[in-house]
Amino acid sequence: MHQAGIVTPVQDRLHFAAFDVTTTSRDDLISLLKEWTAAAALLTAGKDIGQYGAVNGPDEAPPKDTGEAVGLPPARLTLTIGFGPGLFDKRFGLAAKRPKALVDLPHFIADNLDPQRSGGDLAVQACSDDPQVAVHAIRNLARIGFGRVAVRYSQLGFGRTSSTSRAQSTPRNLFGFKDGTNNLKLEEADKLEQQLWVQSEDGPDWMVGGSYLVSRRIRMHIETWDRTSLGEQEAVIGRGKGTGAPLGKADEFDAIDFAAKNADGEPKVPTDSHVRLAHPQFNNGAELLRRGYNFVDGSDGLGRLDAGLFFLAYQRDPRKQFIPIQKQLSRDDKMNEYIEHVGSAVFACPPGVTPGSYWGEKLFS
Amino acid sequence: MHQAGIVTPVQDRLHFAAFDVTTTSRDDLISLLKEWTAAAALLTAGKDIGQYGAVNGPDEAPPKDTGEAVGLPPARLTLTIGFGPGLFDKRFGLAAKRPKALVDLPHFIADNLDPQRSGGDLAVQACSDDPQVAVHAIRNLARIGFGRVAVRYSQLGFGRTSSTSRAQSTPRNLFGFKDGTNNLKLEEADKLEQQLWVQSEDGPDWMVGGSYLVSRRIRMHIETWDRTSLGEQEAVIGRGKGTGAPLGKADEFDAIDFAAKNADGEPKVPTDSHVRLAHPQFNNGAELLRRGYNFVDGSDGLGRLDAGLFFLAYQRDPRKQFIPIQKQLSRDDKMNEYIEHVGSAVFACPPGVTPGSYWGEKLFS
Repeated sequence: MHQAGIVTPVQDRLHFAAFDVTTTSRDDLISLLKEWTAAAALLTAGKDIGQYGAVNGPDEAPPKDTGEAVGLPPARLTLTIGFGPGLFDKRFGLAAKRPKALVDLPHFIADNLDPQRSGGDLAVQACSDDPQVAVHAIRNLARIGFGRVAVRYSQLGFGRTSSTSRAQSTPRNLFGFKDGTNNLKLEEADKLEQQLWVQSEDGPDWMVGGSYLVSRRIRMHIETWDRTSLGEQEAVIGRGKGTGAPLGKADEFDAIDFAAKNADGEPKVPTDSHVRLAHPQFNNGAELLRRGYNFVDGSDGLGRLDAGLFFLAYQRDPRKQFIPIQKQLSRDDKMNEYIEHVGSAVFACPPGVTPGSYWGEKLFS
Repeated sequence: MHQAGIVTPVQDRLHFAAFDVTTTSRDDLISLLKEWTAAAALLTAGKDIGQYGAVNGPDEAPPKDTGEAVGLPPARLTLTIGFGPGLFDKRFGLAAKRPKALVDLPHFIADNLDPQRSGGDLAVQACSDDPQVAVHAIRNLARIGFGRVAVRYSQLGFGRTSSTSRAQSTPRNLFGFKDGTNNLKLEEADKLEQQLWVQSEDGPDWMVGGSYLVSRRIRMHIETWDRTSLGEQEAVIGRGKGTGAPLGKADEFDAIDFAAKNADGEPKVPTDSHVRLAHPQFNNGAELLRRGYNFVDGSDGLGRLDAGLFFLAYQRDPRKQFIPIQKQLSRDDKMNEYIEHVGSAVFACPPGVTPGSYWGEKLFS
């Protein structure tokens, strides 16, 4: 059983939160995960996590549910838990259980990471078609965790930038291009086993059926981009802006022809274009399931929108997928003139809970 | 004719931007407003503002439209323009046209305003049911204005916190309470003339049929609020959290009985409750048309969500409405223990454009 927030066709809105664990007690951590699991079951069913307003308890108690989602449908809410590298330090006796694939990401060229927007011992990805529902879920989990965890950073996102099902049309990112045409699709069961889900031969046991999440806060310099010619934009991406078709092709889903050349002998799809450098053909077949979201977090004090892509990618092994792909992109991708990676994290996302179980139970048993 | 962004039942999402005018040329400013008006007509009709991708012009030119809303319906997009006090300084020869009602807001007790999130020569309120559409609109207006205006600050909001039509149910703010039960409603035509629209006897001519906007970024200390008892929360607001009914009443829309007393002789609706202090009965009949939105802008570096209410209120005269109401609230409102005003601005919003006209044409004629 896989976590719903990975296998559900991408919802429209995101509230992502990374937490620092502030307790050093293993028992406290386990209790927290049990309480979170119980709350998540209620929240994703569209139920309040407890009394929020009607006076059926003493007035002296704070309401159990913060109340702002009362009356709203769950809008396909999913909650996905991830365990960061910090969870496997000395505090909780979990060092021996750290998956080999849960590596600290290396420094990539031009990384400009803000430590306050990077890392985290725990992550919760809340996706829903209603932002108020996603915010409500994260807020109430943070509240349950008070004294045991503290929010390290959080990120709202809108306008999913990827489709993860063939039934979804491909949305556009803030560069104005269709994003995710070649994304892994949930209908491709065999590929998902190869690329997305941890297999028994990978180990450790507690992660089999799970996946690894890499999150990157990618600032887009959209004002610069917007002053760039259409020809340059299309050369950077490797696709037409209108159709989303690979350069030299007519339809979005046409196969990319990397051998095709223009009259001047140059490849129609430039060698430093994003689609080429990110393509499995040039990455030993490695693919990712992307579930990213656009963000605009106001302005940056210089008259520019603080806007970009909150990149979320699930995979079987970051050492074979995100890391080599990003090494190549950070070195050669023409898009680097227009983007900046400002936040980064990696998490091990265990398989989904079975009835009576709790998030990560196998990790602690 | 009134601006659509005031009279349209509140949409679900907001992108609000305040601009500094960086040109000192009156002609440039007029050209900008003409271009914005033309673009707004296209955007609100769900059209791109020009070629975005198909190569029907030279590849060397940047696309006219940034493209991220291609294929999306307008989702009830409205764009509302406001003129801030700075527009009436010496630069543009408009000083004599400054409305008397467009006053600089006074300092209110406990105001903790960030100048970078306050003021602005121009404001555009983009409301839509799709945030990508609202973001696209602001971005393209900012882009059109390049060299003439710069974004001073911008704010995304979700989950409208007010209903402005009897056809809308009352949504909940991040305190978990229904917000806007007693808001002015668009169906109350007589009241709107009294409270919302500038009348000919008010002047100046160019503002007749317009309205004044006060925006306040109100940070809510939701973690503190969430640890507060239900009884205290309800006493602060003056309503039941579940029903939204005034304390001592059963239904949300029951009239508030300020004279009703508990057995101990204290008023059922406390004298320092928000509903009492904000009520027209205790404000010489003054009312506001509120169109606020919830916001969560990540975290504040102290493990707390940077969350709250982006308060937007339209009115006929801030001197008789927002200012006296807020003076009273800032002095006595029990809610002040849980909120902090961190941004503030005031704008004169002229009447809507007629065909062939442009935003604010009468101001310049």
